[in-house]
Amino acid sequence: MIVVMKPEAAEGELEQVLETVPEEEYDSHVFRGVERTVIGLIGEGADKETLKNRLASHPSVEKVIAILDPYKLTSWKFKPEKTVIELGRVKIGGKAPVVMAGPCAVENEEQLLTTAREVKKAGAEILRGGAFKPRTSPYSFHGLGERGLKLLARAREETGLKIVTELMDIEHLGLVAEYTDIIQIGARNMQNYPLLSAIGSLRQPVMLKRGMSATIREWLLAAEYIMTEGNHQVILCERGIRTFGEETRNTLDLSSVPLVKEISHLPVIVDPSHGTGRWELVRPMARAAVACGADGLIIEVHPEPRRALSDGPQSLRPDKFHLLMQEIKEMGSYDDRNTDRVLPSAI
Amino acid sequence: MIVVMKPEAAEGELEQVLETVPEEEYDSHVFRGVERTVIGLIGEGADKETLKNRLASHPSVEKVIAILDPYKLTSWKFKPEKTVIELGRVKIGGKAPVVMAGPCAVENEEQLLTTAREVKKAGAEILRGGAFKPRTSPYSFHGLGERGLKLLARAREETGLKIVTELMDIEHLGLVAEYTDIIQIGARNMQNYPLLSAIGSLRQPVMLKRGMSATIREWLLAAEYIMTEGNHQVILCERGIRTFGEETRNTLDLSSVPLVKEISHLPVIVDPSHGTGRWELVRPMARAAVACGADGLIIEVHPEPRRALSDGPQSLRPDKFHLLMQEIKEMGSYDDRNTDRVLPSAI
Amino acid sequence: MIVVMKPEAAEGELEQVLETVPEEEYDSHVFRGVERTVIGLIGEGADKETLKNRLASHPSVEKVIAILDPYKLTSWKFKPEKTVIELGRVKIGGKAPVVMAGPCAVENEEQLLTTAREVKKAGAEILRGGAFKPRTSPYSFHGLGERGLKLLARAREETGLKIVTELMDIEHLGLVAEYTDIIQIGARNMQNYPLLSAIGSLRQPVMLKRGMSATIREWLLAAEYIMTEGNHQVILCERGIRTFGEETRNTLDLSSVPLVKEISHLPVIVDPSHGTGRWELVRPMARAAVACGADGLIIEVHPEPRRALSDGPQSLRPDKFHLLMQEIKEMGSYDDRNTDRVLPSAI
Amino acid sequence: MIVVMKPEAAEGELEQVLETVPEEEYDSHVFRGVERTVIGLIGEGADKETLKNRLASHPSVEKVIAILDPYKLTSWKFKPEKTVIELGRVKIGGKAPVVMAGPCAVENEEQLLTTAREVKKAGAEILRGGAFKPRTSPYSFHGLGERGLKLLARAREETGLKIVTELMDIEHLGLVAEYTDIIQIGARNMQNYPLLSAIGSLRQPVMLKRGMSATIREWLLAAEYIMTEGNHQVILCERGIRTFGEETRNTLDLSSVPLVKEISHLPVIVDPSHGTGRWELVRPMARAAVACGADGLIIEVHPEPRRALSDGPQSLRPDKFHLLMQEIKEMGSYDDRNTDRVLPSAI
Repeated sequence: MIVVMKPEAAEGELEQVLETVPEEEYDSHVFRGVERTVIGLIGEGADKETLKNRLASHPSVEKVIAILDPYKLTSWKFKPEKTVIELGRVKIGGKAPVVMAGPCAVENEEQLLTTAREVKKAGAEILRGGAFKPRTSPYSFHGLGERGLKLLARAREETGLKIVTELMDIEHLGLVAEYTDIIQIGARNMQNYPLLSAIGSLRQPVMLKRGMSATIREWLLAAEYIMTEGNHQVILCERGIRTFGEETRNTLDLSSVPLVKEISHLPVIVDPSHGTGRWELVRPMARAAVACGADGLIIEVHPEPRRALSDGPQSLRPDKFHLLMQEIKEMGSYDDRNTDRVLPSAI
Repeated sequence: MIVVMKPEAAEGELEQVLETVPEEEYDSHVFRGVERTVIGLIGEGADKETLKNRLASHPSVEKVIAILDPYKLTSWKFKPEKTVIELGRVKIGGKAPVVMAGPCAVENEEQLLTTAREVKKAGAEILRGGAFKPRTSPYSFHGLGERGLKLLARAREETGLKIVTELMDIEHLGLVAEYTDIIQIGARNMQNYPLLSAIGSLRQPVMLKRGMSATIREWLLAAEYIMTEGNHQVILCERGIRTFGEETRNTLDLSSVPLVKEISHLPVIVDPSHGTGRWELVRPMARAAVACGADGLIIEVHPEPRRALSDGPQSLRPDKFHLLMQEIKEMGSYDDRNTDRVLPSAI
Repeated sequence: MIVVMKPEAAEGELEQVLETVPEEEYDSHVFRGVERTVIGLIGEGADKETLKNRLASHPSVEKVIAILDPYKLTSWKFKPEKTVIELGRVKIGGKAPVVMAGPCAVENEEQLLTTAREVKKAGAEILRGGAFKPRTSPYSFHGLGERGLKLLARAREETGLKIVTELMDIEHLGLVAEYTDIIQIGARNMQNYPLLSAIGSLRQPVMLKRGMSATIREWLLAAEYIMTEGNHQVILCERGIRTFGEETRNTLDLSSVPLVKEISHLPVIVDPSHGTGRWELVRPMARAAVACGADGLIIEVHPEPRRALSDGPQSLRPDKFHLLMQEIKEMGSYDDRNTDRVLPSAI
Repeated sequence: MIVVMKPEAAEGELEQVLETVPEEEYDSHVFRGVERTVIGLIGEGADKETLKNRLASHPSVEKVIAILDPYKLTSWKFKPEKTVIELGRVKIGGKAPVVMAGPCAVENEEQLLTTAREVKKAGAEILRGGAFKPRTSPYSFHGLGERGLKLLARAREETGLKIVTELMDIEHLGLVAEYTDIIQIGARNMQNYPLLSAIGSLRQPVMLKRGMSATIREWLLAAEYIMTEGNHQVILCERGIRTFGEETRNTLDLSSVPLVKEISHLPVIVDPSHGTGRWELVRPMARAAVACGADGLIIEVHPEPRRALSDGPQSLRPDKFHLLMQEIKEMGSYDDRNTDRVLPSAI
């Protein structure tokens, strides 16, 4: 940690600052530069965040700069092998990108089964569908609840697809966990820490969506909340961030894919449906996601978007989804860490 | 609602779009302009959001524009008198701005009681203090829990100050509600809809902080989640939004104060401590908040910021807080809606 | 245009608003809904922006909504064929993506010629290199000026590569135009309207970088500034936008590529070097750009990044650049508009 | 400067990094912590930006952190007295806030003179009015040019008000400088470095608006561009930044006022008209600006906003402007640096 003193700081103030540092945890080195005095702290204390804040609270301190990243369980240092989540034969984080697809919300049996059959035929391996829906307005459709979960289970039985669905609160934890293969934590709940801790006590894969205005750091620390409780099966999902852009629902930040892969062993998938909010942009951005190294995609597909109860404008019709799957297969996958690229033929 | 067709849309496609509109709820008017055909829908359906989405999902539709605001219970139309929250003699939304002050986190009895006495002496009417703390990192201090609540109750007993403290999950709802006067919902939970609905069933004042990247619309709709359950005692709290700015923790968006007051009867208070993240900026921004019409302030005060377990860099020492209270009193309050300004002497 | 009146607007105010509309240009249609009165204007006036502003200035008007996009010369409607910029055998906007590469700044003869030979060998067709450098600080290196232009010309002579370099002010217009094949307008100058108009009077290709906080609309309107003066040879360049993100220099907004291609016939290329600011991210993001349909790339390459006078951290060494070119060639190109994909073998 | 090595960096790589540092300018201190090796550089080189970039370009370097701010001429260190710009009896940066007011664009003699008389009567000291207007669309009204400047001069003659008007390019530098008292540089030109350098050679006050997405650092460095050429009469103007907010034209970042005042001796004024884009918000935000210490305001006033050629929706009618001036006068001014507040009676 680096502590930069204000130019006008007196010697007595410097000493006060030094007293704040726990001696048993850190060695302090003082440098008197031309313009500023700077303290370098070498060591590894238990609660660095608190120490940083305390140092920064001294009126004579200009700023405190942390040198080390705060990541533990999510980092390559903790686990030097890539995390691969296995659901039977489906492997997320393995050689080929995995595709999750299905409607935004489960609406009824026919809608769900039609979609499940179509996405299965096109090559998807996991079926998505919301039974509990977070909606900005209290006056919108909020999902079928348990009935939706039962329909998802029926679709799994018929098609063999695995299931991913969202959990919104601790109250429904047992219920959702019973039906689904992967528990989805939505963007709005990325910093709902009690919920993160609760799913951390399960041993079931979790897909953690990036919050609307979350930095990479905050996203990975949210994953650490789950992992510190013992559940290490975390999939990260980039779904777009909020910017000044007005022509798309969100700004899909694809650079987060290679960035996260530099820091962490966790698999990262991309949601171009929420990331753009417009079906015309889903195919090109899905290809781009795979090209920059995503371990998978989650795509909204609806047999008749104009009758959808939610997210119709960003849902693909089955024919467009088939086209997308074809393109993805031709691309193969990319892994900049190992540089040996998996060619299309290998998939 | 206005539906704009794509320039190349054929007549048959227009008819398909018109069939989507429920006749019993809306009258459709078709305009054929030079370049585009536009449909105007007049009426008031039950689930406008779903209709809007369905219309936008037609491949021949370019965009759908909503004319009316989605606000119901929060709007002046629903309730033409300003909402005033009364806690004994303390009135939030009344003539004079109300000040809440205290430490970020309750740390121990001495820290809390010292602060409580100081802020009381300076003129604050409500004591803030976190017992349950949401922290970005799982490795930071998370609050004293129930012990913190008990200390807050003791400080109330001694000083007569009212209490505001944060509730983070439904599990602790009963516990927190038992001890506090105002339940705070933090920025990270602004769209935690199950939590909002749960506190909606109470009859206790709620302070709803604006989410880090929430628009005014999303913030007011979050308030509607609470209000639709019957709890109309909602105080809004601006605490800064996330922007590209790197010199402050957040960007305090003071224009939200007069903006919300144009739309809604709910009181709005401002948190310049989180809004800036730097104690040097707290005083000027607190004055600015009052000058643009805020109904109150919430300020972090700590007897020794450099020993604080959290948020030291944005906490005022008691002497600076006294200065701030003095300045606020001299300013009086502003109400652009009624234009009759409350002069300092009236407070 | 749609004018939405405030709910409390009286009949007399409606008439005042209607008087603002020039009768000879627009037909007005008044709709009295349950809650609001709305005016629909059909027609096509000369200065819509001014009319929109005037209508919005009435105190009884809540908002004015424009229906039509403001694009003229940039839109497919004006020119239904894709624009292809031809520089000898190099075609920007044609079947295969074109790669521009070279150092951020021209530093000296050896640096430039070494780089030029390397990027030529790897398959690049255009050499980039700054002779006039806009720098945030007045105390940084600002480029070699005319001497830099001469070195670029010498590199062109030797390698046959075409040249792209930045023009910063009207004063150097003739000088830069004399040496370069493509004139680059930097992000900071995207709304420097006198400069845009000046290059509009040339008949030389222009590469217009997207401004740091420019919407798609503002970017295309900046292109219209150039085109209205007669110069239709405009290449758009996405180079990242400014967001809250702190781990990358900018946030590369790749969705702008398919978005612009829906609206406009102009070619779009991508700059992953400035878009990320980190060389490790350049290769994956370059691949992603091609995968979502970019017509080309502009990449910073330096023989020894750690000796570079600017932008070293985002410059590729020649060996990494070779790798990137190999990957790009294997991908082929994508054109969602025509759906016939150009396979790698065709390049 | 602090150089943080990657955890896997070998000793040989450390030496390569150390070789990059010019020995005659910096002393290097190497620290080997538990997890990382860190180099501290003490000294003061001529081109720190280049050194920082070079160090960051080493593949074995994780990041380079600058300790010192890059400000020179703008900082209190360079000039410990507040800068006061004097135009006859008008003093910007003095005890009382100065108000500039007038129409967005000069439209005709009657409009300008009516406005000038009104704002003078209300207490404004400087008349604003655009003769050259930057507009997002090439198809909008671009100002009267020299005729507009002449009308401004006539208004000055009649009323005694000083004049501020925008300069958009070097070509019109002499012309604009001849007519105006203060040269305004607009937000879009904040990083138009040739223009900044050109006005730096004048000895006339300049008002430099903050760019739409400029950090405080970039804004002050833009001021340094002007000042390094010898012109130290710079007034900074906060006019709102671009954020995700959709209810206002920009987000007025008032915290920039006290922030800049901590760093710099230059006066800062605020433009709540562009900062909000809505006349209803201008009065409350103007008061807030003064309350947090602004040295002045610039306000758009138009006798008939609904006939304005530009910015009608954010222009005040003269009666509202009178009200605003009255409120401002009652507030007095604030100076957190000296803490001695100027009471209303003193103005």
